[in-house]
Amino acid sequence: MEIAHSLQQTRSSYIREILSAATDKNVISLAGGLPDEQTFPIALMQPMLEKLAHMPEIFQYGATAGYQPLINYLHELYQLPDTHTAMICTGSQQGLDLIARAYFNPQDTIAMEAPSYLGAMQVFNLVQANIVTVPQTEDGPDIALLEQCFQQQQPKAFYAVPDFHNPTGVCWSLSVRQQVAALCCQYNVVLIEDAPYRELRFSGEALPLVSDFCPNHSIVLRSFSKIASPGLRIGVVTGKRGDLEPLIKVKQGADLHSSVPMQALLLGLLQHPDFEQHIQRIRHLYQSRYDCLYTALSQQLPQGCHLKPINGGMFIWLSLPDCDTFALAKTMLTKGVAVVPSPVFYPDAAPSPAALRLNFTNASPEELTEAVNRLADGLKAYLN
Amino acid sequence: MEIAHSLQQTRSSYIREILSAATDKNVISLAGGLPDEQTFPIALMQPMLEKLAHMPEIFQYGATAGYQPLINYLHELYQLPDTHTAMICTGSQQGLDLIARAYFNPQDTIAMEAPSYLGAMQVFNLVQANIVTVPQTEDGPDIALLEQCFQQQQPKAFYAVPDFHNPTGVCWSLSVRQQVAALCCQYNVVLIEDAPYRELRFSGEALPLVSDFCPNHSIVLRSFSKIASPGLRIGVVTGKRGDLEPLIKVKQGADLHSSVPMQALLLGLLQHPDFEQHIQRIRHLYQSRYDCLYTALSQQLPQGCHLKPINGGMFIWLSLPDCDTFALAKTMLTKGVAVVPSPVFYPDAAPSPAALRLNFTNASPEELTEAVNRLADGLKAYLN
Repeated sequence: MEIAHSLQQTRSSYIREILSAATDKNVISLAGGLPDEQTFPIALMQPMLEKLAHMPEIFQYGATAGYQPLINYLHELYQLPDTHTAMICTGSQQGLDLIARAYFNPQDTIAMEAPSYLGAMQVFNLVQANIVTVPQTEDGPDIALLEQCFQQQQPKAFYAVPDFHNPTGVCWSLSVRQQVAALCCQYNVVLIEDAPYRELRFSGEALPLVSDFCPNHSIVLRSFSKIASPGLRIGVVTGKRGDLEPLIKVKQGADLHSSVPMQALLLGLLQHPDFEQHIQRIRHLYQSRYDCLYTALSQQLPQGCHLKPINGGMFIWLSLPDCDTFALAKTMLTKGVAVVPSPVFYPDAAPSPAALRLNFTNASPEELTEAVNRLADGLKAYLN
Repeated sequence: MEIAHSLQQTRSSYIREILSAATDKNVISLAGGLPDEQTFPIALMQPMLEKLAHMPEIFQYGATAGYQPLINYLHELYQLPDTHTAMICTGSQQGLDLIARAYFNPQDTIAMEAPSYLGAMQVFNLVQANIVTVPQTEDGPDIALLEQCFQQQQPKAFYAVPDFHNPTGVCWSLSVRQQVAALCCQYNVVLIEDAPYRELRFSGEALPLVSDFCPNHSIVLRSFSKIASPGLRIGVVTGKRGDLEPLIKVKQGADLHSSVPMQALLLGLLQHPDFEQHIQRIRHLYQSRYDCLYTALSQQLPQGCHLKPINGGMFIWLSLPDCDTFALAKTMLTKGVAVVPSPVFYPDAAPSPAALRLNFTNASPEELTEAVNRLADGLKAYLN
């Protein structure tokens, strides 16, 4: 069979290619977005893992919207108003896919920051949406250009990662949050707030969700992949009940429902009295790795390279003098370090300033230090 | 946001409405398609459930195509040639959705039997495919009309449930299997063979998959929901490697991958030495329930009602004299028995002979007997 037109437009994932090359034992990978396996709170899951065998009902078909005890727990945890609710997805990636399928026709316009999360571009490409981008400043999207975009392009929605953005690590300021929310209300644009890294703040003060300022013009995606385990594939979407109904309808066709034992396991973990302490531990761990990577980079980078300091998340964005970053990333692989070049985080048509995304959560301090040695050597040679 | 056009066309699931009403304690439900919770082989899963806590790698992000040890096991189990492979899905429902998204453009034609599985119609409606149907005989699809359909409509694919069809319970004869396979090859139509009930044969001899006669013109969907547990949401698609590539590409956007602990758990179960014995047990159990329902119906049905005897699966198809089966099903609910009316198993435009789908796997013999009393009383009153 000939594949669908929608699929002919998607490019193969360069990250997957790099990740595949990065499995070579001699390569230190800063390319992925993986949490450290050693951090998985398996000990805290153990009591519920043992209970599962005595809960035959969770092995039966479940409700499409999710396991009700988990929904109830999250409703309270996120202090949702009665007008709002939560639905469970097979990872927050599915939540994004459901939103795209439920709300977007081919050629409908969606606004995103540039650069932006690759997986979001993939799902919006799959529904053949028209992606328009707004450049990012150090505090979040450029507000003047965002308003111009809302005015001129009239997007249906604005997709954003306000907390420790993937790939740049940028965390929106309070003022930007308030201004974006106001613009969404003013121009009737739905904010799709993706918050997978929100809990990974290791310095500075926690800020409200952007959606807190526009609760009726937003849908929020949350992930447990960075603080619990990505393997479970359990994420959550919250929003107005009426806004989630179409997602539930699509999900019925997409996979009926997400794994119920995994939902019960996640609930047991979230309710474990030591879970908050566990999150504290991974924050400290990731902060120490970030410090290690940032310090080593600051000391060794050749002129013309720039780093953005961050307060959380999983990535450092390394800006470079103008160059072919694809070729650079391939060269770096031969030097034994895997990184992701900036163009993969931009839509095909958009210009992409030269940069690399560096992940620091899945390598030891020794590996990070050695990776920077290789990277700095490679950069010096390449940029000359 | 206004919902997508594709979603505006899908009707809300009548089965869901009935299932929701059927949770009333006074209603005996023959409406669902649920296996009996008591049959779930939790004891056989227990050893692997305990092992999970010592396998940190399965809590990490996994490969989109699935957990490799499970793929390897299934490759051998299904004796796939080297040209073919298996990929793991979040239930076989997702496999179907991935096929629809990877291969169907709006207006592309898909052929199905009529009646047909509701969840398949849903996913093909979601991609706005043009559904054409071929009537079913007691041995499978009407071959002359199927050839006519292939000739005149040139569908991209033919979706079918050859083993213990949902909703009719029909099992295709060997001859029909061979003829359908030959037609698929002759007219270059891909067979999408959905086999969730295949293992639930309780009489007669097992027949080859239709795909065994056209391995290069087919994609096969398999489910573990009826023989293991639907709550896990693990299904599998097998086919030519090249044919599965586009599905993997869509799945990357859809949910990245299916739950790895659930895949490992399923593998442990499939490898348990007592698993085959477990399947034997549920075959016997369901046969006894089928016998109970069939016998009671045969004795009490009013004139003009017809039953098809079956050799496996989960459903009996009860043909009725011409009547409004929606109104009938609603009346039956007030009498304390939930059933599904035939029109929900036909595309909107297709004519639907009056019938009811009756499930026998999730009720005790006492409940089945009482359900038939209520059904027979109701039918006599309604058909007069």
